[in-house]
Amino acid sequence: MNKPHLVVVGSVAIDWIITPRAERPESVGGSATFFSMAASYLSQVRLVGVVGRDFPDYAVADLRANGVDVSGLEIVQDGLTFRWKGQYHENMNDRTTLETHLNVFEKFQPRLPAEFRGSEYLFLANIQPRLQSDVFAQMQRPRLVGLDTMNLWISIANDDLKAVLKNVDVLTLNDEEARQLSGEHNIVKAARAVRALGPRNVVIKRGEYGALLFDADGEVFSAPALPLEDVVDPTGAGDSFAGGFMGWLARPGVEPNGASLRTAMIYGSVMASFCVEGFSYDRLKGLDAAAIQRRFETFASLTNFDRASLT
Amino acid sequence: MNKPHLVVVGSVAIDWIITPRAERPESVGGSATFFSMAASYLSQVRLVGVVGRDFPDYAVADLRANGVDVSGLEIVQDGLTFRWKGQYHENMNDRTTLETHLNVFEKFQPRLPAEFRGSEYLFLANIQPRLQSDVFAQMQRPRLVGLDTMNLWISIANDDLKAVLKNVDVLTLNDEEARQLSGEHNIVKAARAVRALGPRNVVIKRGEYGALLFDADGEVFSAPALPLEDVVDPTGAGDSFAGGFMGWLARPGVEPNGASLRTAMIYGSVMASFCVEGFSYDRLKGLDAAAIQRRFETFASLTNFDRASLT
Repeated sequence: MNKPHLVVVGSVAIDWIITPRAERPESVGGSATFFSMAASYLSQVRLVGVVGRDFPDYAVADLRANGVDVSGLEIVQDGLTFRWKGQYHENMNDRTTLETHLNVFEKFQPRLPAEFRGSEYLFLANIQPRLQSDVFAQMQRPRLVGLDTMNLWISIANDDLKAVLKNVDVLTLNDEEARQLSGEHNIVKAARAVRALGPRNVVIKRGEYGALLFDADGEVFSAPALPLEDVVDPTGAGDSFAGGFMGWLARPGVEPNGASLRTAMIYGSVMASFCVEGFSYDRLKGLDAAAIQRRFETFASLTNFDRASLT
Repeated sequence: MNKPHLVVVGSVAIDWIITPRAERPESVGGSATFFSMAASYLSQVRLVGVVGRDFPDYAVADLRANGVDVSGLEIVQDGLTFRWKGQYHENMNDRTTLETHLNVFEKFQPRLPAEFRGSEYLFLANIQPRLQSDVFAQMQRPRLVGLDTMNLWISIANDDLKAVLKNVDVLTLNDEEARQLSGEHNIVKAARAVRALGPRNVVIKRGEYGALLFDADGEVFSAPALPLEDVVDPTGAGDSFAGGFMGWLARPGVEPNGASLRTAMIYGSVMASFCVEGFSYDRLKGLDAAAIQRRFETFASLTNFDRASLT
């Protein structure tokens, strides 16, 4: 039997990151990049994206070295890569966008290589909802579709977003986005309203506070975040989470259900915790199954407690 | 063998609570009140505090009905009870203090009844650190001492606070207070710095995001908060947490160690989750062991996931 494949479409970027303690210009980033590096340790990843002539060869080589199929990465020779410059504040959660240059991303029309279209798993990372729909339409019949989005699309492309959400099994978004999309402040009510838009499962990411899963059976799961002493760069944490999450679900023999989604939440949290320990995908590069598994055990012990009784 | 006793000293208050959806004037509150009501379901509570002639008889009767020994509650006939008026904002986390009247609390000199002094467990709820020290000095030899504090004392009574902390086994405080007390922004570093002040165990409360335990063995435990659809009034959540936490540790046969502290964190979270479902101690009143145990199981399922492996 062939191993199942996981297609991701999203941004591939060159970021310029400023944190209170350090700065990294030319930091390779983008939602599809982080997702692919994280998921590559768990399953067979196929990346769809676009870059310009300035995109460094080493980054393509890094993706390839991790087994990512980059045949869907379009390289536009007369264009420049999407660039984002941002500054993190003291709490490492709030950030300010200093510059955004869409460059080749502005006219991006994702086109899936023929052999990608029959893939079993699809993740629509954070890009314009209309492009997410285009990609979905090119797929034959994926078993499971995940999607990430952001406040911008909720504001300026709300109808397009709601259209693509009808095809989605798992939506990941942060708490503010859940409130914005639903119009509900309370997070339980917000999750219910978001599920009514289509996604049977909703993952609400809360940064340093972990993530919540509201699943298709109406159950709630709370995944902790690992308290880390040194957060170097939070960029890509959410995409790395999605990579670990989808990567687990796309493994041979894993059926998508309430139990496997919970395990997926932990692998997502594991990959996010590695991501923030370095700039770019530095910490996602040299991992192996044993290192990931050790951190999975750390997460397990983080929430483990003895069952007790008063009665 | 006699059951162990748990002494709490703290405020007993009449609050005026305004939330975005409702208002409750004359809402009986105070740190010792919430603590006592929550802990009363788990162990033998002895309350030390002060009120004025305006304190309602029904509240004393409610404490008694829950088995709380109120012989340490001083009633000053020519004074009025401590009053606090506060308003919660839309997110139900931020609040603004509108009025504070210390009243009888201004000259409070806690005096423990003779039979309280040999109690095995002591919780110094949020009051002036110097009073916390006075109470500690009146105790013979408690097995375990817990303490809660607030930003005000960290600012204006820092030396007094640091003095009493040397006698404390478990300190509970929120994340902002941990940062303020330690001067460290990162929560792991903050917890370590706070532990160096005396308390071998530090509990960092994060409101709707749960709580973290940094224990005497250097282990970290993350307790989730229950995502609730209707938060009526967050007042007293932290004190109710402390009540459930200390209440578990003060049960016959429970030895204070890393494992029992984790279980205590969950009973604390359980009692906090009940507290916020009503004004004052409304929801903490009619509970029983079975209802508490059912919610304990809800917390267990909230973080439960299958162990899995990549290797």
